[in-house]
Amino acid sequence: MLLWAAAEGFRFLELFVHLLILLVLTRAFGEGAARLGQPSAVGELVAGVVLAAAIAQFGADVPFLAGLADSALLDFVADFGIFFLVLMAGIEMRPQEMAESSKTAFVVALGGMFVPLAAGFGLAWVWIPENDLHHAQAFLVGVAVSISAIPATVKVLMDFGVLHQRFGRVIVSAAVFDDIFGLMLLALLTGVMQTGVIPDAGTLALLVIKVAVFFAITVTLGVHVYPRLSRRIKETQMAALEFSALLGVGLAYGLLAEALGMHWVIGAFMAGLYYERPRVGEPAYSDMKLVVGTITSGFLGPLFFATIGMRVDLGAVTAVPVFLVVLLVVAFLGKFIGAGLPAWILGLPRREAAAIGIGMGARGAVELVVLSIAYEAGLFAASDGIHPVVDNLYSSLVVMAVVTTLAAPLLLRRVLATPREADPSDETSPPSG
Amino acid sequence: MLLWAAAEGFRFLELFVHLLILLVLTRAFGEGAARLGQPSAVGELVAGVVLAAAIAQFGADVPFLAGLADSALLDFVADFGIFFLVLMAGIEMRPQEMAESSKTAFVVALGGMFVPLAAGFGLAWVWIPENDLHHAQAFLVGVAVSISAIPATVKVLMDFGVLHQRFGRVIVSAAVFDDIFGLMLLALLTGVMQTGVIPDAGTLALLVIKVAVFFAITVTLGVHVYPRLSRRIKETQMAALEFSALLGVGLAYGLLAEALGMHWVIGAFMAGLYYERPRVGEPAYSDMKLVVGTITSGFLGPLFFATIGMRVDLGAVTAVPVFLVVLLVVAFLGKFIGAGLPAWILGLPRREAAAIGIGMGARGAVELVVLSIAYEAGLFAASDGIHPVVDNLYSSLVVMAVVTTLAAPLLLRRVLATPREADPSDETSPPSG
Repeated sequence: MLLWAAAEGFRFLELFVHLLILLVLTRAFGEGAARLGQPSAVGELVAGVVLAAAIAQFGADVPFLAGLADSALLDFVADFGIFFLVLMAGIEMRPQEMAESSKTAFVVALGGMFVPLAAGFGLAWVWIPENDLHHAQAFLVGVAVSISAIPATVKVLMDFGVLHQRFGRVIVSAAVFDDIFGLMLLALLTGVMQTGVIPDAGTLALLVIKVAVFFAITVTLGVHVYPRLSRRIKETQMAALEFSALLGVGLAYGLLAEALGMHWVIGAFMAGLYYERPRVGEPAYSDMKLVVGTITSGFLGPLFFATIGMRVDLGAVTAVPVFLVVLLVVAFLGKFIGAGLPAWILGLPRREAAAIGIGMGARGAVELVVLSIAYEAGLFAASDGIHPVVDNLYSSLVVMAVVTTLAAPLLLRRVLATPREADPSDETSPPSG
Repeated sequence: MLLWAAAEGFRFLELFVHLLILLVLTRAFGEGAARLGQPSAVGELVAGVVLAAAIAQFGADVPFLAGLADSALLDFVADFGIFFLVLMAGIEMRPQEMAESSKTAFVVALGGMFVPLAAGFGLAWVWIPENDLHHAQAFLVGVAVSISAIPATVKVLMDFGVLHQRFGRVIVSAAVFDDIFGLMLLALLTGVMQTGVIPDAGTLALLVIKVAVFFAITVTLGVHVYPRLSRRIKETQMAALEFSALLGVGLAYGLLAEALGMHWVIGAFMAGLYYERPRVGEPAYSDMKLVVGTITSGFLGPLFFATIGMRVDLGAVTAVPVFLVVLLVVAFLGKFIGAGLPAWILGLPRREAAAIGIGMGARGAVELVVLSIAYEAGLFAASDGIHPVVDNLYSSLVVMAVVTTLAAPLLLRRVLATPREADPSDETSPPSG
């Protein structure tokens, strides 16, 4: 007669079924993608698209399936997925090396960000009709085409044995800078979403000051307090306390970022950024990299990418084909010119500059994090029925991210496979040059 | 003007604040307890009691604090905390060694379970007035006093260098058996909660068959499929896939257990139980132990113990003092006689049999998991105002668990510190005997 089945059991069982479906599906697609030489995140995102289609088709017949589409679990997992993805991105980066990184990489990153940002903003400003969220949407499109990521590209560079040549290192460093710029742009985007308009000079100056305060606080803590904290923790039960401390710092930095008008993901990122081997010691660093990396790649990440995919409506491909093609061209050319041209001007040979422009074209986790945050903030939902481009904006941007990410390694292989010009600036001379 | 603050941001920020408060408070109290030589779970539980008191006192004044008391986060975290605590308990146990363990340990575990089970059941049956949930409540009290755990006791045994003497090994093995018996009793308790009455012989036989089917399936899969699964996974990206697989198996076993009328925690436990070093290989085992252990001890465990504490009303101590004292006496004597007497009959010297009876008195995670499940199933809430003992039953049982857990190591130290009788059955002869 009792409570059990009705009250708590059923809800939690449904959660079990949902988690199991998501876990099995995403890992199967993710592994499939990895075996095809693609980032597993793309496979996991596609798993979400497939799942959404399956729910639409069979949701009424299969028990539990229908509830998956609007499960509170998805929002929750998406948020925690973002937290861990960004924390892990921070842990994997080495701020020391970045500070010592080449001027070329910095300039390439800047060019590779501002050119597509301007082009994407311009495109959206003209194409998207006037509506309440017009400013924010135009800015979002600019941000969406301006963020690079490297995982797929690195694999190609390694295959060709050019990862440690000058242009290979430029691609990697510039993409890292780009992720950080992307997170800063997100701070600005949050401001635009809050006010609904592009900030004026005064507001912008205030925002810059707030950003500076945030970084001053977190960098100081990162450089001076992290090592001491770790030394104290080392005396006791290590991994669990390190993990608690890392999560606690991420939460606290997230709250600080929000208090200063930025988005909490920047806090999570900074918590990870200064968690690095020389600062916290080898065992703690590798333990946390394993633990956070395993939670991220083995559970929260795949589910996050699946939620991204589940929200995609592939109808966008047929509903707004022209916009989508133009968006892809802007995304590709913006990176190709914005990152490739400065590289060429700074003295890299044409073929390598082209490789940089193409290699920077891949999008990644930070890109999808920004889209997801904009989605949850209602930037797409609030505009139903105004115009097909607005209705399909989210799906178009995700398709753009996936297509450019899949295309970048393919195109990069082509460029690297062409015979190279004899070039004195190369550090290693090709054996069959 | 926009969405951000209102829609998603605020809810998630509140979650951040709640998580940060819980994390900082539980880890501080947990570390404090550990430095006093107590299990950190006790400290984390006390942190919950303190937090609940703080909310009652200052909840109206401090922003976000009031929402923490009935945050959906707590239920969610409690459920996932249980999943990971039980999964980790399974990972840490070695079924191979248990199968080879001594007959003495098995008999001690059986006696140490059935005597307090009967005594607790009898006490509650007589003391708790007739109400809808009378059967289930009496059975729960029996189960609650019958579950042992060892972490606190092991530390004492190690301090005295007797962990590997016969009675030391008996305590450890018997407590492990006891945890497993406790989970089986939970299967029965779930049945009682669903039907509201103690099952008759036919229902009981059916339940036993279902339990047998469950164990037949999961043990077969554990012995034969786990090693193959791990061998395949080893070829690819290891830790993340192992983690996904382990979670997936836990979820699937949990659903199987529920389908067979048991509770899902038994599924999570069995998923961990056959995840052991010789079966899955050294690197995978130690990676998963680190990852699951870190999530459990560094995040979900402390929050779970805090939620247990937050639900405690210390008013129980003054509201039903006589019941509480009798409950403590039953819990202590039940274990002392139930586990100590068989040990003495099986030939252990009196002092060591006493040490066994006392050492088995500590309660632990499985005990609190059972109480939490009963709480969420409404076993305590559905009886408001019937009788003070019913109203204070949950708090009394938690207080009993904490007091016996704190008392066991103290009493054990006393017994071990008394000069021992000369005894030929001892494996190692005391140097100053």
